[in-house]
Amino acid sequence: LPEVLPQAGSGMCPQTRKKLSKRNIKLILEFEGTDFHGWQIQKDARTVQGVVTDALRLGLKQDDLHIIGCSRTDAGVHAERYCANFHTDTKFSLETIKGIANTRLPDDVKAVDAEETDNDFHARHSAKGKQYRYRINTSKEYRPLLRRFSWHVPYDLNCEVMQQTGHCLEGEHDFTAFSGALEPGKSPVRTIESVTVSRDNDEITIEVTGRSFLYKMVRIITGTLADVGRGSISADDVKKILDSKDKSNIRVAAPAHGLTLVEVKY
Amino acid sequence: LPEVLPQAGSGMCPQTRKKLSKRNIKLILEFEGTDFHGWQIQKDARTVQGVVTDALRLGLKQDDLHIIGCSRTDAGVHAERYCANFHTDTKFSLETIKGIANTRLPDDVKAVDAEETDNDFHARHSAKGKQYRYRINTSKEYRPLLRRFSWHVPYDLNCEVMQQTGHCLEGEHDFTAFSGALEPGKSPVRTIESVTVSRDNDEITIEVTGRSFLYKMVRIITGTLADVGRGSISADDVKKILDSKDKSNIRVAAPAHGLTLVEVKY
Repeated sequence: LPEVLPQAGSGMCPQTRKKLSKRNIKLILEFEGTDFHGWQIQKDARTVQGVVTDALRLGLKQDDLHIIGCSRTDAGVHAERYCANFHTDTKFSLETIKGIANTRLPDDVKAVDAEETDNDFHARHSAKGKQYRYRINTSKEYRPLLRRFSWHVPYDLNCEVMQQTGHCLEGEHDFTAFSGALEPGKSPVRTIESVTVSRDNDEITIEVTGRSFLYKMVRIITGTLADVGRGSISADDVKKILDSKDKSNIRVAAPAHGLTLVEVKY
Repeated sequence: LPEVLPQAGSGMCPQTRKKLSKRNIKLILEFEGTDFHGWQIQKDARTVQGVVTDALRLGLKQDDLHIIGCSRTDAGVHAERYCANFHTDTKFSLETIKGIANTRLPDDVKAVDAEETDNDFHARHSAKGKQYRYRINTSKEYRPLLRRFSWHVPYDLNCEVMQQTGHCLEGEHDFTAFSGALEPGKSPVRTIESVTVSRDNDEITIEVTGRSFLYKMVRIITGTLADVGRGSISADDVKKILDSKDKSNIRVAAPAHGLTLVEVKY
C-alpha cells in the first residue's frame, strides 16, 4: 500500500486526485512494539498502521481513510508519542474520535492525544526532529522484568567513554557506515543534534535526537557505543568508521526491543 | 501435586519418607507473571513452579526434584526476587546450577541468584517477611507501555488520604474483610509491618510489608485504598470494614498484573 503524499497547500491527494477532506487530525499514539511488525502496513503481518487504519475506518465509517505515520519504525520498536495524521470529513469531536479509535484498538496501541491541524500538515514531511531512547541493561543476570524494553549486555560498560564517543557523532555527517540498506537516491547525510549517555545503576540510557535518521541508524549507533563501552573498539576507531563511509565497517545493530521513539517535534 | 513439607531438622521428607538430599539450594527467581497461571504447579496450565521444576529435573537429571516456593503467587503477579529451594545431591557449583537452570528456562522466568543453605531451610516456612509493590497508573489515557505492570485508574487519586488510610491497616488485625477465600482452620489474623503510598507524576506506588498475607490480601488492600483515593469511601469506612471482619464488606481486589513480589526476608 503506497503512502499518500498530499502536496502542501494543493488541497488534492496526488494519488487519488480527489479533493482532500475538510479536517486533518493529528493523532498521538503510544504502542508496545513487541507484537507488531513495525509501523508500515504489510499483507499478512500485524502492523501498527494496519490496526490503527482498521480501527479508524470501522469507527468513522470511512473506507478510504489513510493514516500517515511520522516514520517507519522497525518491528519490535516501541513508541511513547508516535505522531500520525489522517484526513476526514467526520463531524465528531476530537475527544470522540480518540474514544472511537481506542474502543477498537488493542491494548498494545492506543491514541493518547488528538489535535486538529492544518490541512497541509504531514506527520513525516512536517517533522522537525525526533527523539529516540535506547535502554541497555548491564546486570550480570538476564532480567525477565526488563527484557521487553532493554537490551541485555552483561558487561561493565564504560559510560563515560560511550558519552565521549557519542559526542563525536553529533553534527552533520555522512552516516553510510551507520546505516542499514539505503534507499536509492537518498542522501546518507544526516544531522544529529545530540547523543546523551547516562547510567542509573545497571541501566544505561542512550538518547539520540536529530531531524531524521537513516534506516537502523540509532540501533547501529547504540551497538557501536556498546562495543566502545566494552573496550572492543576505541572512540578513535568510531571516528575512522564514520569517516570511512563504508558499509563493510558497520558494527552490530542493537536489537529493536531496546528502542523507543520518545517524541516527534514539528 | 501436594507440597513437600520437610520438618525442621528431621532430615526426612515427610511425603516420601526418604532421607533428604545432601544439599539444599536456595534459588532467587525473577519472573514476569503475564503468561503464567501463578506459581503453583497445575495440570494443563503453565505455571512458574512447573517450568522451573521441568528445567531443573532435566538439567540436573533428578526426576524426583521438588521445588518449594515462598508463596503461591496468583496468576499474573510478577516477582523481582521470588525465593524457592530444592534438595539435591548434585555436585555442580552454584554458578553451574544457575546456568543449567537458565539455559532451559524461558525468557519470562530466570534464576538471578543461587545460594547454599541449611538443610532445614524451607522457602515458605522460614520466611520472616515479604515486601510487595503495587503500581497504579492514574493517567487519563490508557498507556500501552505501562499496561503489563500497573493498574490503570484514570482518576485524580488523593495520595495523602490513601497513605493515612494505609497506616490504619498497619499492625496486627483480623483481616477477614480484606481476604479472598480463607483456608479452613487458617487464622485470619496477620501483622502488617508497613503500608507506604507514594506518587511520582501519574504513578502511585503502594508498598506493603509483613510477615505473611492472606489470599488476595494485598490486592484487596490496594483496591480499597484506590476507592479511598477516589473519594468513594472514607478512611473511617475502611476502619469499619476492618472491624466488621465480614467478607460481605470486601471492596474490589485490584488486578493481579499491577502486583510485584519484591523481596522475601529470612
